Amino acid sequence: MSAAPRQAAPQRVGICYHPALAGAQDLAERLGGVVRAAGVDSWLSPIDWSQVDVFLGDHMPQTDVLVCVGGDGTVLHAAGVAKGTSASLLGVRMGRLGFLTECTEAEAVPALQRVLRGEAHLEERARVQARVNGGESVHALNDVIIGRHTLGRTISIGVLVNGVVLAEYRADAVIIATATGSTGYALSVGGPILHPSSEDLVLVPVAPHLTKANPLVLPGGQTRLTLTVERGEDCVLSVDGGPEQIVGAGAQVEVSLSPLKARFVRLSGPDQFYGNLARRLGWLRADHQLGELGPTGR
Amino acid sequence: MSAAPRQAAPQRVGICYHPALAGAQDLAERLGGVVRAAGVDSWLSPIDWSQVDVFLGDHMPQTDVLVCVGGDGTVLHAAGVAKGTSASLLGVRMGRLGFLTECTEAEAVPALQRVLRGEAHLEERARVQARVNGGESVHALNDVIIGRHTLGRTISIGVLVNGVVLAEYRADAVIIATATGSTGYALSVGGPILHPSSEDLVLVPVAPHLTKANPLVLPGGQTRLTLTVERGEDCVLSVDGGPEQIVGAGAQVEVSLSPLKARFVRLSGPDQFYGNLARRLGWLRADHQLGELGPTGR
Amino acid sequence: MSAAPRQAAPQRVGICYHPALAGAQDLAERLGGVVRAAGVDSWLSPIDWSQVDVFLGDHMPQTDVLVCVGGDGTVLHAAGVAKGTSASLLGVRMGRLGFLTECTEAEAVPALQRVLRGEAHLEERARVQARVNGGESVHALNDVIIGRHTLGRTISIGVLVNGVVLAEYRADAVIIATATGSTGYALSVGGPILHPSSEDLVLVPVAPHLTKANPLVLPGGQTRLTLTVERGEDCVLSVDGGPEQIVGAGAQVEVSLSPLKARFVRLSGPDQFYGNLARRLGWLRADHQLGELGPTGR
Amino acid sequence: MSAAPRQAAPQRVGICYHPALAGAQDLAERLGGVVRAAGVDSWLSPIDWSQVDVFLGDHMPQTDVLVCVGGDGTVLHAAGVAKGTSASLLGVRMGRLGFLTECTEAEAVPALQRVLRGEAHLEERARVQARVNGGESVHALNDVIIGRHTLGRTISIGVLVNGVVLAEYRADAVIIATATGSTGYALSVGGPILHPSSEDLVLVPVAPHLTKANPLVLPGGQTRLTLTVERGEDCVLSVDGGPEQIVGAGAQVEVSLSPLKARFVRLSGPDQFYGNLARRLGWLRADHQLGELGPTGR
Repeated sequence: MSAAPRQAAPQRVGICYHPALAGAQDLAERLGGVVRAAGVDSWLSPIDWSQVDVFLGDHMPQTDVLVCVGGDGTVLHAAGVAKGTSASLLGVRMGRLGFLTECTEAEAVPALQRVLRGEAHLEERARVQARVNGGESVHALNDVIIGRHTLGRTISIGVLVNGVVLAEYRADAVIIATATGSTGYALSVGGPILHPSSEDLVLVPVAPHLTKANPLVLPGGQTRLTLTVERGEDCVLSVDGGPEQIVGAGAQVEVSLSPLKARFVRLSGPDQFYGNLARRLGWLRADHQLGELGPTGR
Repeated sequence: MSAAPRQAAPQRVGICYHPALAGAQDLAERLGGVVRAAGVDSWLSPIDWSQVDVFLGDHMPQTDVLVCVGGDGTVLHAAGVAKGTSASLLGVRMGRLGFLTECTEAEAVPALQRVLRGEAHLEERARVQARVNGGESVHALNDVIIGRHTLGRTISIGVLVNGVVLAEYRADAVIIATATGSTGYALSVGGPILHPSSEDLVLVPVAPHLTKANPLVLPGGQTRLTLTVERGEDCVLSVDGGPEQIVGAGAQVEVSLSPLKARFVRLSGPDQFYGNLARRLGWLRADHQLGELGPTGR
Repeated sequence: MSAAPRQAAPQRVGICYHPALAGAQDLAERLGGVVRAAGVDSWLSPIDWSQVDVFLGDHMPQTDVLVCVGGDGTVLHAAGVAKGTSASLLGVRMGRLGFLTECTEAEAVPALQRVLRGEAHLEERARVQARVNGGESVHALNDVIIGRHTLGRTISIGVLVNGVVLAEYRADAVIIATATGSTGYALSVGGPILHPSSEDLVLVPVAPHLTKANPLVLPGGQTRLTLTVERGEDCVLSVDGGPEQIVGAGAQVEVSLSPLKARFVRLSGPDQFYGNLARRLGWLRADHQLGELGPTGR
Repeated sequence: MSAAPRQAAPQRVGICYHPALAGAQDLAERLGGVVRAAGVDSWLSPIDWSQVDVFLGDHMPQTDVLVCVGGDGTVLHAAGVAKGTSASLLGVRMGRLGFLTECTEAEAVPALQRVLRGEAHLEERARVQARVNGGESVHALNDVIIGRHTLGRTISIGVLVNGVVLAEYRADAVIIATATGSTGYALSVGGPILHPSSEDLVLVPVAPHLTKANPLVLPGGQTRLTLTVERGEDCVLSVDGGPEQIVGAGAQVEVSLSPLKARFVRLSGPDQFYGNLARRLGWLRADHQLGELGPTGR
């Protein structure tokens, strides 16, 4: 991997936390103390879907680094809030290993100190955008999903790639995921895992009926998808797992790479992604001896 | 296969049809004429979820054979209506090859004449039953599905088999299908196909997260499943794709083989199932020459 | 499950062990001491493909219980040796959790003592048989596999079920597995897991090309499969992972339930199978609290 | 997609054909006549693994366009022969729709005439290279496969990505495919389909044991894979489905993007790939009405 750009020492650090997760607020407050002790401006807030606008208006514009205390869901939510700003996210996980958090609770204080000293890297991640019937675009860090509204009924979704008919899926849903989202819901249905730096999009149906439906990896910068909900049944559109929007039969949803990027603070190298993956997916034997893999296998 | 029992010549034949399918009513009326011409009592009705009770009360009790004109969905619906009666179903398809219909529109008249002459066989199919928190049992010919209510959120469903903890699935849904349902929704998620005469149940998760989740085939007569919706998110229960019922967090759903059977009229042998499967799933090459398979491959 | 029959206290106990597994011979000798201390006749031997005939001729006919020290492979091999005799197998595992072994090294002595006192149950398992071009039948406890000889080339295998054309698979291989084999190789390609008492056969292709190829569960007692290697490429037949046999293009392989059963000594109840499965496949969350599943979830 | 570069009118055209395919030689001779009639230098030859060196030495160096008459296998073989030369391939299929052929037998003459007039485009495709224990590199257009030698035995293959331990696969094989190979063998095991212009590599295990093993898409230019055959069983290495090479236990295989590209002559636009895919994989309903997809779905 080419060297990632550096994340400059921040002037203003925001700290947000999952409001219902035991210990998250305590840790957030401790991290706030670390920021203030370094003489850097800071703010603290729980994160909550219902207060998105207030939160955004008050705090985000001048924030360089946004620390997110919780889990992958907390970081995903914060990424939505930070959309269109220049804030970089640093995820601290309270629970088990995730894909979006950068360090554990125990590692959080020294990690934040390194960030404050300007010793971290900046990683940009692609987003995907969607708009229904020519309306306003919504932007997702993980995925855009168009799916059935009622369990057990399959729907029909026609897909065009740059105007060429690709498929008419009879399925539960169709997922269009970013590289970041490739380790989310898309993973559950057999989707491929992309390197975080990729700008490609993954297209994968959920529970397709009677056809083999391998995932597609589409070049993000050159692909315009048009999804049409076939006559007969309403569907819903879900953006990063947030509140659903009804998409009526006959509606057209256009999906493409978003011009907006998400920014993450990184303390480890880009290939660390593969090590996390191995641990998270259990791809190493319980009794795996690294030495077995030879001198390069550490 | 052992020889199937004979379906006695019927005393009263009902004919139901999909009300919105082009040509279904016309064909139903023609078939009604065939029954009357044979001097057998008959009745005719569109089939409609909203009129289930009236339909049942008026017609089903004295009916020996119920002809269903439409598609697999029509037959599935009629099987729900015929639950607990002794009526045998004969499915006539207006469209493409299905798994529950026995003959095409073109074959319908001679098929019905054979049935009227008592030349058909009777095939019993297992149903699956479910009840929520000790309430009343519902019965399905295809499947019982417990799934998430909101697209893109995974749920956690704990599964006990005869009181032994089997799994805690983080998934979109868990399907429990009969042999009949094994060619329905369960097929879309990689479920195994069972012979129609099997009383086994298939348990298969939809889009399980981070674990390999092979389907299970459970001996129907000896298996009591308990599914528990873990705290946090409401689920829905769907029975044969009908209207959904909310199943709250913490609720327990008990699932087992139903004592009620579905009855089908069959005109072909039991192994014809495999021939239908081959055609329906495209398991024969487009240029398949049966002769290639040797003397037994007629 | 219905109560399993009892395994009578044995008159003669054989003990075999994996010859290359650290500690296996030591444990086998200790277990031999336990048998002699109970005044029961015993014999001890390493197990080895190359000595099958000698081993069989000398020891098996009068043996009631055969203790197998090693792993699933050791038990599988011993089951081949015990084919056609009345010996029941008791598997003791030296390594990680398997599906065929009944107890760990630490549990072996008390387990064997219970068996010697006649406190164990007997579990019969189905085998599958295959014969090529009308030749002699071979019998497998796990599976019969017909596959390509050369990596990366797909082959064409025609399948008839009771004379009806089911499929022409273009695939790496076709597996026909017993219930026991359903947790073996068949599991790796998405096959369903059957209850150990089932006499059904699982048919599943490996890496089928361009078609969705769900597994089939076939009623063992009523199914005769005919697999034909299509013209063009030789295949190989593998029985329980043993030495391969070339099956030429045009050859016909007949596969069906074997009349020979395998016998296993069981110390736990039949539903314990599901608990083993849950542990082996990681279907419980790392942080799974059994209490969460409610009062029945012990 | 950005506009593809033009393929200049050729000075010398080679025509090769599958020697055992009915009609291939006849068509090849007819196409040779078309080339000569245009006053362009040409040669004609059957294509055969056993004559690779002679073929190469005599003909390829001065050839601009190599017409391949046969199927995808013929083109794949010719691409191996053309490796390291500047010849562009034009595939003509005798049989069913493939991914590497550009036109049918019926379209071949006008297609070739357009190529001779310089009206075609040039499409470059990535190759993947592999070398065993630091030996000489081999190059594949489709894929490099490391797999088990004996059916029914799983092997263990350790994988490092840029020196980071990713996985230890217990599987039948591990495939590393190019974009071109993503529609080959990798497709059969659920691999994602990449756009032909992609330089990414797909890593996917075949029949992985007990773990969910989603495919990985790796940035070709920045990824160095090291695969280690774990102690215990020999493996084989297969390159584009050609003759296998034994890879002993403990051997290390390094895999990366090849510096050599394959060149193809294209007469249709880059998005036509998706249309071919739809037809080849049956992703459109049999009764699909293009009009249903709306004004853009021509």
